[in-house]
Amino acid sequence: MEDYIYGRNNVEEVLKDLNRSVSKILLMKGMDKSSKIDKIIELAKARGIIFQFVPKEKFAKYKDVSHQGVIAFVPPVKYLDIEEFIQKKKNGYKKVIITDGVEDPHNLGSIIRTAVCAGYDAVILPSRRNALINATVEKSSAGAVNHISIIMVNSLLSAVDRLKDSDFWIIATDINADDNYFDIDYCNMNFAIIMGSEKDGISKAILKKSDYKIKLPMFNNFNSLNVANAASIVIYETVKQTIQNSGNVV
Amino acid sequence: MEDYIYGRNNVEEVLKDLNRSVSKILLMKGMDKSSKIDKIIELAKARGIIFQFVPKEKFAKYKDVSHQGVIAFVPPVKYLDIEEFIQKKKNGYKKVIITDGVEDPHNLGSIIRTAVCAGYDAVILPSRRNALINATVEKSSAGAVNHISIIMVNSLLSAVDRLKDSDFWIIATDINADDNYFDIDYCNMNFAIIMGSEKDGISKAILKKSDYKIKLPMFNNFNSLNVANAASIVIYETVKQTIQNSGNVV
Repeated sequence: MEDYIYGRNNVEEVLKDLNRSVSKILLMKGMDKSSKIDKIIELAKARGIIFQFVPKEKFAKYKDVSHQGVIAFVPPVKYLDIEEFIQKKKNGYKKVIITDGVEDPHNLGSIIRTAVCAGYDAVILPSRRNALINATVEKSSAGAVNHISIIMVNSLLSAVDRLKDSDFWIIATDINADDNYFDIDYCNMNFAIIMGSEKDGISKAILKKSDYKIKLPMFNNFNSLNVANAASIVIYETVKQTIQNSGNVV
Repeated sequence: MEDYIYGRNNVEEVLKDLNRSVSKILLMKGMDKSSKIDKIIELAKARGIIFQFVPKEKFAKYKDVSHQGVIAFVPPVKYLDIEEFIQKKKNGYKKVIITDGVEDPHNLGSIIRTAVCAGYDAVILPSRRNALINATVEKSSAGAVNHISIIMVNSLLSAVDRLKDSDFWIIATDINADDNYFDIDYCNMNFAIIMGSEKDGISKAILKKSDYKIKLPMFNNFNSLNVANAASIVIYETVKQTIQNSGNVV
């Protein structure tokens, strides 16, 4: 079955990604035009992708999403096998983010978006009790799902074991940790950072296997950060350390 | 006119905040009960707040929000006057976040939530071209709007001038800045960090008045971070510096 992508920015992103195939684009007749629509048509023409103007009624079944008059049909996102990822050669160290129970597709999309901005190598998702890639995730990621390896695993425990065997350090975010997230030195190692579900955090078995546990300091006795924001804070701490460590001006 | 608050966590938060008045709570007849609902009823009883079980049909007009069978009616959030905020005495330095054109209520709510977790003192919103506090913002903030001063201003330019006169440093996030966000020393000063709209960033006139301009490093040629994630990253850099500077273990 085909997936679809909705929204003007998102469809533009997919069209720009030459690794991604698009089978067809639907545009709503009589909608407000914009330079974005011109751009979409131009990209579709350049790539030889069919686009059709169709009556408003054809969009009725997409009424629950903010399609802005544009839908692209695409093959489902290809998940990468963890073994393939581990075997892949890279100059420098690999950086991975793992979600363990992030069920809100907006949060998952948002985490993937930050991971791409930060130059991470992969996102690992368990196949159960976690959002998987769908149109909402893709939209929330602003198209970022097409710019990073997405690995889906049936057992997160086995995946963590496999990463540890392959010289990755496992770093778990946990509200009860002793160390703050900025107390860890993220340089000169392969690492995977795990974010847990908003409700229950990271599962105990995974927590046990982790090499480091980190927390984010909180004030005002206020419950907790949104998981996508928390992920961004930790991810960018690693970016900062990498930049400062390399002495590069970015 | 009254505002309403929807969702179980959110209604619980409002009931726990004794500074916030609640005029009435509606609960949906026949919904799945949970310990959360018991807690809401217990809190309402303790505070002498009217609660009513009403038929499903009464919730029809709230069908666009995820109310989970619970709605609380509340007076609108009170905005604080900027003059009052400036006059307010505080031990230590004041930390403020300003949004200049953040129109998505989920992003605004998310920014307020992070600001509360980080112990910030206020959020300043322009009254035009920016989301204002409503039920969606309140929900996205996980109730955080009740734990921080919210200041609405008609002119952001005047507000920035007033802050500068009162010994605040103005820090603008700007994609074209030379400095990274972690190059600034945020300790030992009052400051206000400005986040711009996702589309256009911070307006030129405000940018001109800023004392510092900072950017977030980006990789992969990927367009940009979500504004709420970017805000979290900068806010927590200031938290980290404060903690490290004070030598406190938090």
